[in-house]
Amino acid sequence: MIEDKNPQRTDLSQLGEFGLIDHLTKQFDIKQKSTLKSIGDDAAVIDFKKKKAVISTDLLIEGVHFDLSYMPLKHLGYKAVVVNLSDIYAMNAVPTQITVSIAVSNRFPLEALEELFDGIALATKIYNVDVVGGDTTSSQKGMIISITAIGEADEKELVYRNGAKENDLLVVTGDIGSAYMGLQVLEREKQVFQVNPNNQPDLDAYTYLIERQLKPEARKDIKELLAQLEVKPTSMIDISDGLSSEIMHICKQSNVGCNLFEEKLPLDPQLINVCEEFNIDSTTVAINGGEDYELLFTIKLEDFDKIKANPNFTVIGHMVNEKEGMHLITRANTKIALKAKGWNALKE
Amino acid sequence: MIEDKNPQRTDLSQLGEFGLIDHLTKQFDIKQKSTLKSIGDDAAVIDFKKKKAVISTDLLIEGVHFDLSYMPLKHLGYKAVVVNLSDIYAMNAVPTQITVSIAVSNRFPLEALEELFDGIALATKIYNVDVVGGDTTSSQKGMIISITAIGEADEKELVYRNGAKENDLLVVTGDIGSAYMGLQVLEREKQVFQVNPNNQPDLDAYTYLIERQLKPEARKDIKELLAQLEVKPTSMIDISDGLSSEIMHICKQSNVGCNLFEEKLPLDPQLINVCEEFNIDSTTVAINGGEDYELLFTIKLEDFDKIKANPNFTVIGHMVNEKEGMHLITRANTKIALKAKGWNALKE
Repeated sequence: MIEDKNPQRTDLSQLGEFGLIDHLTKQFDIKQKSTLKSIGDDAAVIDFKKKKAVISTDLLIEGVHFDLSYMPLKHLGYKAVVVNLSDIYAMNAVPTQITVSIAVSNRFPLEALEELFDGIALATKIYNVDVVGGDTTSSQKGMIISITAIGEADEKELVYRNGAKENDLLVVTGDIGSAYMGLQVLEREKQVFQVNPNNQPDLDAYTYLIERQLKPEARKDIKELLAQLEVKPTSMIDISDGLSSEIMHICKQSNVGCNLFEEKLPLDPQLINVCEEFNIDSTTVAINGGEDYELLFTIKLEDFDKIKANPNFTVIGHMVNEKEGMHLITRANTKIALKAKGWNALKE
Repeated sequence: MIEDKNPQRTDLSQLGEFGLIDHLTKQFDIKQKSTLKSIGDDAAVIDFKKKKAVISTDLLIEGVHFDLSYMPLKHLGYKAVVVNLSDIYAMNAVPTQITVSIAVSNRFPLEALEELFDGIALATKIYNVDVVGGDTTSSQKGMIISITAIGEADEKELVYRNGAKENDLLVVTGDIGSAYMGLQVLEREKQVFQVNPNNQPDLDAYTYLIERQLKPEARKDIKELLAQLEVKPTSMIDISDGLSSEIMHICKQSNVGCNLFEEKLPLDPQLINVCEEFNIDSTTVAINGGEDYELLFTIKLEDFDKIKANPNFTVIGHMVNEKEGMHLITRANTKIALKAKGWNALKE
């Protein structure tokens, strides 16, 4: 599906390992005062001063987490950074540095890695983080990306998964389910393309969904917004594996139950249309989809007035006693036990 | 070559991703006061107080960095941690936490991952570090290990690669070259085994070399030892890619040249014997071998008296003006330009 616009092909071994790392990382300038030592030594050195350090890591494998037949390399680089930063925002912290390790088989020319690193560089610019280390090596098969995100926060700002209390409201940012349906559209087009390579796809009706899948953004705005509204969440998590799965993480770690209301789920109109076209229940997609990189959090009931008028937030449920369990309350007012159907890489 | 002593085989998908992570990480207790939040949230939280944070990361790929036909999984887990901690020690810092991400194909049963994690757990115990995060997922082929090591140091303690000055002495800990020859022995035995699987190898003459390859240790003793001796290195690096390559890193970053003396290279007697057996020049092995995880550092000339009696240290050369270049001075007193023949994964 993706045209090769760059017929140039430079073999990676021409540069050697150190030459390659130099070449790919020279575009990274230092933006953070806390970065005392960046790429080029045995390790990076960071000065968090009075702040706490927040660290998260993710491993992305070609064929498991991404498919290069419809994922442009620049988007992949961008997304790989964003999904890691999302974990830092989910702690109510601010990302400041990342390390980037890449392994590639010799099927990838230098130009492919340059595209990947262009996407990484763009993300670090937009999210204002420094690349302070990493590793570039060869793989036996496909591309492997491992990113560690580092952030900082005052201790009193940090929000964990385990602080939700009975009667707290459950709130989600943005809308959910679109990234998953974007993936379904891309998978369908891939199959059409495999049957007929001359078919030109018309993706106009799916632009929002596809963008949510290929170029997601992390919610860097939420920490400041909540601070302005003077709301501190009691618990928080980001939506990577799916809403249902993330709610269950908060409930289990906070020892509470939850009622989630189907009618409250924030769905984009394009998602609803495409779910109809695909004959898939949009609630199922919204609950189990994953990869939205929105933030899910709980707030005290008395904070409701502070957030109710804000278009970034939707109250989708409330926490109940642990004994009541975790349920979806449908539009027909039936109660269905939540299940973590989140994406499970090990069952692929 | 490695007998399967554990015929039990539990498919990974039986546990699911979250179940697997819980199962593998439950043995990790928290040892460091600075670990405020460990596994189980979006990110770990660490309190470095007045110290600086030191961060390094490595990606290890089956078939590129390790061969499971002679590398027991427990040793692999141990080594994967140690090689990362070595980078932290090379900053004259103390490792405090790690994150561990693993991807495996479905050819690995749960019992294999348990062995790997046993080795990881042993290393974290011996080196007193906490596992604070990570990721466990599937791969299309083979095993992939990504570890990020996190450490701490007072700013004044940190030693970079760029501080070497003309006339400084070049010092190495322990002995070098053995890990490389251990690998050669293991490769030879693998080939013998492939021809005749009933052949029982007699490895008694190679135990030290094999241990250096399969179960290396990082030099956690050196920071304290140097502090006791009141010596602060002017530059430091660990020997992963090979002595020659590491010397060149220090020289280039410090803008100095170097004379390295062949007769001074610290070689274990077993290494010398096995080099003769293999008909390989032991100096070539010592200079280009790699994977020794010893520390290479420079000190001021006036500090020589402080270290000269210590069996942990060998002075192997001195730094010269940048214009003089980087040379090996042979036993025959000829001068050969150093080349970075260090292991290059991209040329495999």
